[in-house]
Amino acid sequence: MEQFFYPKSVAVFGVSDRPSNFGRIIVENLLRFSFPGQVHPIGPGGGSIGGRDIVPSLEAAGGCPDLAILLIPAAQIPDTLEECGRKGIHHVIIESGGFSEFAEERENLEESVRRIARAWEIKVLGPNCFGVTNLEQGLVLPFFIVEPRYMKSGASALISQSGGLVYDTLMLSSCENLGLSKVISIGNKLMLNENDFLEYLVSDAATSTIGLYLENFSDGRRTMELASSTHKPVVVLKANRSPEGEKIARFHTTALAGDDHVVDSAVQQAGMIRVANLSEMMDSFKIFSLPPLTGPRLALISRSGGHGVVSGDAAHREGFELASFSREFYERIQESKRGVIRATNPLDIGDVYDLRLYADILEWALQEQDVDGVVFISTFSSESDGQHMQELIRRAAALKHLYQKPAVLCMISNREQWFQIKLAADFPVFDDVDTAMNALAKSFHHSRNLPKRTFAGSLSRGAWRRTAPTRLADSSRLMTTKETFRLLSHYGLPVADYGIVRSIGEALREANRIGYPVAFKMADDLHKTEKGGVRLDLKDAAALQEAFTGMQGESFVVQKMSPAGQEVILGVKRDAEFGPVLLFGLGGTLVELMRDIVIRVLPIDEYEAERMVDECKGAPLLRGFRGAPPADRENLVRCMIALSRLACDHPDINTIDVNPLIVLGKGKGCLAVDAKIETLL
Amino acid sequence: MEQFFYPKSVAVFGVSDRPSNFGRIIVENLLRFSFPGQVHPIGPGGGSIGGRDIVPSLEAAGGCPDLAILLIPAAQIPDTLEECGRKGIHHVIIESGGFSEFAEERENLEESVRRIARAWEIKVLGPNCFGVTNLEQGLVLPFFIVEPRYMKSGASALISQSGGLVYDTLMLSSCENLGLSKVISIGNKLMLNENDFLEYLVSDAATSTIGLYLENFSDGRRTMELASSTHKPVVVLKANRSPEGEKIARFHTTALAGDDHVVDSAVQQAGMIRVANLSEMMDSFKIFSLPPLTGPRLALISRSGGHGVVSGDAAHREGFELASFSREFYERIQESKRGVIRATNPLDIGDVYDLRLYADILEWALQEQDVDGVVFISTFSSESDGQHMQELIRRAAALKHLYQKPAVLCMISNREQWFQIKLAADFPVFDDVDTAMNALAKSFHHSRNLPKRTFAGSLSRGAWRRTAPTRLADSSRLMTTKETFRLLSHYGLPVADYGIVRSIGEALREANRIGYPVAFKMADDLHKTEKGGVRLDLKDAAALQEAFTGMQGESFVVQKMSPAGQEVILGVKRDAEFGPVLLFGLGGTLVELMRDIVIRVLPIDEYEAERMVDECKGAPLLRGFRGAPPADRENLVRCMIALSRLACDHPDINTIDVNPLIVLGKGKGCLAVDAKIETLL
Repeated sequence: MEQFFYPKSVAVFGVSDRPSNFGRIIVENLLRFSFPGQVHPIGPGGGSIGGRDIVPSLEAAGGCPDLAILLIPAAQIPDTLEECGRKGIHHVIIESGGFSEFAEERENLEESVRRIARAWEIKVLGPNCFGVTNLEQGLVLPFFIVEPRYMKSGASALISQSGGLVYDTLMLSSCENLGLSKVISIGNKLMLNENDFLEYLVSDAATSTIGLYLENFSDGRRTMELASSTHKPVVVLKANRSPEGEKIARFHTTALAGDDHVVDSAVQQAGMIRVANLSEMMDSFKIFSLPPLTGPRLALISRSGGHGVVSGDAAHREGFELASFSREFYERIQESKRGVIRATNPLDIGDVYDLRLYADILEWALQEQDVDGVVFISTFSSESDGQHMQELIRRAAALKHLYQKPAVLCMISNREQWFQIKLAADFPVFDDVDTAMNALAKSFHHSRNLPKRTFAGSLSRGAWRRTAPTRLADSSRLMTTKETFRLLSHYGLPVADYGIVRSIGEALREANRIGYPVAFKMADDLHKTEKGGVRLDLKDAAALQEAFTGMQGESFVVQKMSPAGQEVILGVKRDAEFGPVLLFGLGGTLVELMRDIVIRVLPIDEYEAERMVDECKGAPLLRGFRGAPPADRENLVRCMIALSRLACDHPDINTIDVNPLIVLGKGKGCLAVDAKIETLL
Repeated sequence: MEQFFYPKSVAVFGVSDRPSNFGRIIVENLLRFSFPGQVHPIGPGGGSIGGRDIVPSLEAAGGCPDLAILLIPAAQIPDTLEECGRKGIHHVIIESGGFSEFAEERENLEESVRRIARAWEIKVLGPNCFGVTNLEQGLVLPFFIVEPRYMKSGASALISQSGGLVYDTLMLSSCENLGLSKVISIGNKLMLNENDFLEYLVSDAATSTIGLYLENFSDGRRTMELASSTHKPVVVLKANRSPEGEKIARFHTTALAGDDHVVDSAVQQAGMIRVANLSEMMDSFKIFSLPPLTGPRLALISRSGGHGVVSGDAAHREGFELASFSREFYERIQESKRGVIRATNPLDIGDVYDLRLYADILEWALQEQDVDGVVFISTFSSESDGQHMQELIRRAAALKHLYQKPAVLCMISNREQWFQIKLAADFPVFDDVDTAMNALAKSFHHSRNLPKRTFAGSLSRGAWRRTAPTRLADSSRLMTTKETFRLLSHYGLPVADYGIVRSIGEALREANRIGYPVAFKMADDLHKTEKGGVRLDLKDAAALQEAFTGMQGESFVVQKMSPAGQEVILGVKRDAEFGPVLLFGLGGTLVELMRDIVIRVLPIDEYEAERMVDECKGAPLLRGFRGAPPADRENLVRCMIALSRLACDHPDINTIDVNPLIVLGKGKGCLAVDAKIETLL
């Protein structure tokens, strides 16, 4: 992949000397950024750009470029790709769009590209993208104008499925004076996808923070593996939060887990950080350019009481603590200012009129043993104040490596000084303390979660990736009750004692064997509850007989009534992007009204299963709520792991629905009472 | 109040000609902003500022100024205020801080100020504030440097309890090119508070949107009355979200309602808009400077597919719909651009290369009948694109009044063009589509809630405003069970039939009268549950006898067991800032684990009570959940109104706790089973 980022020579196809020509813009970007390698503009019309002749073909360009960029009509791409292959080029970026406008021809075109690329061992990025930007090398391949004076080389990288968001990122990083390492626009992901570049960035020494903008995960399990394998923060902006997921029929427990909920869970499970929008992505880049926050104790320093209150609120919201300053700290400020300062945190330094002291106060705060990080808020309007603020920022930048604690500066000024402040040093400045505190929480969360738990999505690849059926009847079938109970039992998930019966005689015999009270239910019927096909707590033969008489159907379940316990539900579904996931919730109203559901991508181990239980808001119900005895959490965890194993062993299973599982008292285990399994045909 | 904002002459006390003198900065601000009235700098040291002599006293200044600003040591304030009074000045702003540093003397000082002010009928704003800014008049009284070139007169006003936030607001409005009408820094609120200025701004023709930054409400009920009396949006940033509220002992249902939860509810009830931070306040000012969004159907227009996805997500999150464009709309674009455009919403106009068309497309979208508002997203980098974008903004500004629909522009550019865009017209530009969509939701919410329901806090003033006791034993007492049940019954809240008994003989007699099964409970004991003092469902005399034997105490309750129904809780507490509030929740786990609680400031009517029930996430349980019969919602609403009346009639009541109230089936009413009332001593 190296040659996508560090090519020694580049050929750009589709260049003309018309000012509006997109290929020309790429060539000009490379010249503006003093790209040190060779640039070959190729186009049929001749002419020249910046002293470089536009030649009609690769042949005419001479030599063998490391990288080719194609910005030509879609229909010409196969031939050109073939030309690249013959010439020995192994890295090609197709920036052209138009693949999708060709409707019926599109698939042929895509197939051609794939075939030619495989034949010549060409790695293809795109189509429909802005290619690659590597500021370290002056390699700037988007076909819009980028100005070197706005851009800065740095350590944050972005992989983006949308060109528009690449545009935004370059502009916003310009406004924030934020250094970027590599920006990759992956477009339609015809061949290379986010994981190929994520893998590269994980081992790229120039990159310390990785951003991902995705509209879909090409292989979510692989993304999880990669993200969990690195200490670098991976920040995910996942758009396209399809509301369609919510429309799925309600009879499945699994319908409770919308696709976006799965994304949330997967991102968290792999130690990634999810953001809601690009501003939050930028703030993440800013905070991760500082030393990590490794403890919760903050020093809040500002020039007014109101800022103290506002920052205190924000700190409290994010779960931080207010650090205790030492007496020496206050005394040092007092001495220097020759006046009274109130010994509090948040600290109000509004009465310190000598602004040169600010940088000292910042450093003293960083030196405090009980302080894990400093948030410094300052609003100012005058030119002279601005000078001091710039000095403060430069000092903060200088102290960055000395104390290995984050100093978060929040500054507001008028529009004349707005960017002067941002440009004062290679050091981030935040505008809003709320935003800054939220970013700081991400830093703390990330450093606390290190070392990351590695996610190993060790399923037989591809098996789970078949498209999930939208309706049951289409391409899946329901296992019989008998099969279902057997499979669950086989994996160690205890099922309340039962028998499958077809006559009243069999029913009575089974009930005698099991012992009353029993439940009597229609077997193999998805809608048995609605049909009145469930009768509970039948205390004797007469009651069973009466229940049998009122029920239609061919086969039935006679089942031991479970002792009272806490109802939970366990479900498995195959997510289109992440494969099999497990969902857990406490039965009844909590799940149905509150959607109190926890999800994990499978497989899970004991640690993850325990965390799932604990993350449930209803978890106290299992611990012995309102004087009830505590439930058998250990056994519940074993059941969850069993179900995880079952699901991972059977790629043909689409959904599993254990509802309810009764968790009995401590040491007494669990009992599955009802369950459905749906397999793919 | 008029003279605080439109004085013909102003006296500033505490001025010297030292450059760092704060009084001098005020005088200079007035000169810079060409304040049209007279300015009298007063200070003992002589000298002059901008050709105006600094005179030693009011006497020496001559005439009688409409407004005096005091920025002098706190200890000198009483004398100077006296001087103002004698001279006939009725409006004084005390900007000096230092009141709070004087510790023990402070109360004397404050009392002096109050006494003198009352004696001379002086309205006093402050102390410890930045006074008043009225850009329409060039009246700029903060003692920090404000530059006219950054400020713009407009229709948004702010009342702020923090000077720091006034500073921020002036700077941020400069960056957003946002017009301000009046900014009032209320400081310590010694005499005038937010309500005095809110009342003024409600009827101020120059102000159309009102922002409030508060750390506490001086009289929350009055704020609610004022806010609900106007169609102007009142945007509230309430800081100081004291977590202390959460620490209150848990035996009270009312402890479930934190102070901040009460604020949330009160703000919503009075039709105000709560924001989380100042950025959101600015975004609110921006959106309310546009025509209101009166319907949910949006047109989303952008230059890339990714922006379409991101804006679609944001629209979905805020509950908006995507408008259907007419065929003519698409055809018009197609004709003009001479190419194919995909007929979708979000609309991708990335292939429209003639940027002059953008403004037309915006106008056509506004003309569409099915479109209630337009969100237009554009990122750009080049100078020439910037020109077109400015043109687009000016066109949007021109169309503002023509179509009476909001056109929300989201634009991102590099730092050179960032402020050029903002300054292109008197029209707001948003950066982030997420933020913009959230602001738009506020506009929609506000216009949908008009006409507002008027809140009339018609309690006997002051009665509820006594400080609530922190612990029961301190200054309150628990009513006896008998008194409690009687009072509830008197107000029409049905209590399950009961008797208070002291002996087993009485108990058995009462049980016979009531009819078994009965409950048997300790009376007048707050901790009866923990002490084992509650026995339920006693089926006969023997069971009652056994229960009696096992219980200690002097008096007991024998009570009819209520039929099964839905348990709810009703609570009343006196909030320190809003007086009596009612809280409602569905009993059991929903309330205790999920904090599913709805609150209203009392009194409430049927409409509000119904909304309370419906806002509860657990509300479906009352409608007949999972086949259960629907509950008597009408009667529940009557009980809530009864409790509201009870609480408003008795200002000495501190808390009421009806837990549980059993809501029986439709037409069968409700039954209170247990209740506590705590009164102030």
